Amino acid sequence: MKKLGKRTWLIADAYFDSKSNHQPSHESVCVLNTSDEDATITMTLYFEDKPRMKGFVATCGAGRTHHIRMDKIKSKNDETVPQDVPYAILVESDIPVVVQYTRLDTAQAEMALMTTMAYPVE
Amino acid sequence: MKKLGKRTWLIADAYFDSKSNHQPSHESVCVLNTSDEDATITMTLYFEDKPRMKGFVATCGAGRTHHIRMDKIKSKNDETVPQDVPYAILVESDIPVVVQYTRLDTAQAEMALMTTMAYPVE
Amino acid sequence: MKKLGKRTWLIADAYFDSKSNHQPSHESVCVLNTSDEDATITMTLYFEDKPRMKGFVATCGAGRTHHIRMDKIKSKNDETVPQDVPYAILVESDIPVVVQYTRLDTAQAEMALMTTMAYPVE
Amino acid sequence: MKKLGKRTWLIADAYFDSKSNHQPSHESVCVLNTSDEDATITMTLYFEDKPRMKGFVATCGAGRTHHIRMDKIKSKNDETVPQDVPYAILVESDIPVVVQYTRLDTAQAEMALMTTMAYPVE
Repeated sequence: MKKLGKRTWLIADAYFDSKSNHQPSHESVCVLNTSDEDATITMTLYFEDKPRMKGFVATCGAGRTHHIRMDKIKSKNDETVPQDVPYAILVESDIPVVVQYTRLDTAQAEMALMTTMAYPVE
Repeated sequence: MKKLGKRTWLIADAYFDSKSNHQPSHESVCVLNTSDEDATITMTLYFEDKPRMKGFVATCGAGRTHHIRMDKIKSKNDETVPQDVPYAILVESDIPVVVQYTRLDTAQAEMALMTTMAYPVE
Repeated sequence: MKKLGKRTWLIADAYFDSKSNHQPSHESVCVLNTSDEDATITMTLYFEDKPRMKGFVATCGAGRTHHIRMDKIKSKNDETVPQDVPYAILVESDIPVVVQYTRLDTAQAEMALMTTMAYPVE
Repeated sequence: MKKLGKRTWLIADAYFDSKSNHQPSHESVCVLNTSDEDATITMTLYFEDKPRMKGFVATCGAGRTHHIRMDKIKSKNDETVPQDVPYAILVESDIPVVVQYTRLDTAQAEMALMTTMAYPVE
């Protein structure tokens, strides 16, 4: 199967809400790899008032999807994604993939959902 | 009427929630075919930890839309879309069409909605 | 001010829900015209099992936006948008504009929102 | 780090709802600047029946994101964003950035969320 998509994707609006009802609020960086090679996904986080955080790495296998849960991932330095601050994500893959961002927010009694394709660069 | 759109579209974040209130949770792969020829739509599903499933086929007539309900479609092998697991969708058409993905989730008392254009390739 | 955007846009997932709580369910085809000329917006509606409906026309003035309410618009033949059936929309403008589609659904007690840029063609 | 994105982005559907529950309804124009230079972000607002408003300016630092809150920003003339009227936004940056628009509406008891990448021009 052909490699479809791009290697660099950007998500300007990310937010990990610490408030939840019975289901945790969470964000997913959803990757689709249609190719016959595994993809290594590297994420860099950008903030409003502090330096970026590097080294959030995940794998999306050949012919697989990976809905990377941003509330569970840890960086190489064992850091987690900060809660309750606006951030943004640069997603880089070593082979072309497709990236979609989804947020499920359960801060209030009923959940709210939003999604968008990330912005593809090259 | 001209053919508008692309033949290959990707959706990285799909999820068929088994939980529902009085209205079933469901996803739609919405196809618009502005041309004078019928379009055959073939979907391949990708998962996190098992091989892809092929052979989910639908038609979108000439000058018609088809909001393909992923909770109702069956593959050629009479398989249904698995519930409660992250998946992704490759949508292929034999003529150019436009594809938009929408999810209506009613797992909690009140519904949540999300939508995005699929990612067009060629 | 320059003309920005495209002349042809497509929305594959439209749905005019007849159910509402105290605020009516509605969809908007939101047009932004940054140029110094008025834009004439012509919409064609596509359905799953009947011929398309033509002649839904609106204006978006020079340097103006128009959030066209699909629950209020009438065609040249005085037709309204059908309720409770899946449909899709071809949006054509005589000059370049930008088109975004938003749905506010209040079928249940609490509203749900979704939005996406329409798919630009040329 | 490379400059990624575009300098001109458009959002056709903006709306600042005056109604809120315990959390204020608000919109964010989310900017991601991956480069090593600060970006100056200038927004022009377009309306349905009055002239555009200019001069809403914000900064997005080098290697930073800025989720610009449209309910808080003031123009150079100390104007705020009008409430309860449809509007649209032209976002211009002096260097390439990525722009995503998100609305959190709490007019009813439970919040609703929607997001989309803005439309990139050049």
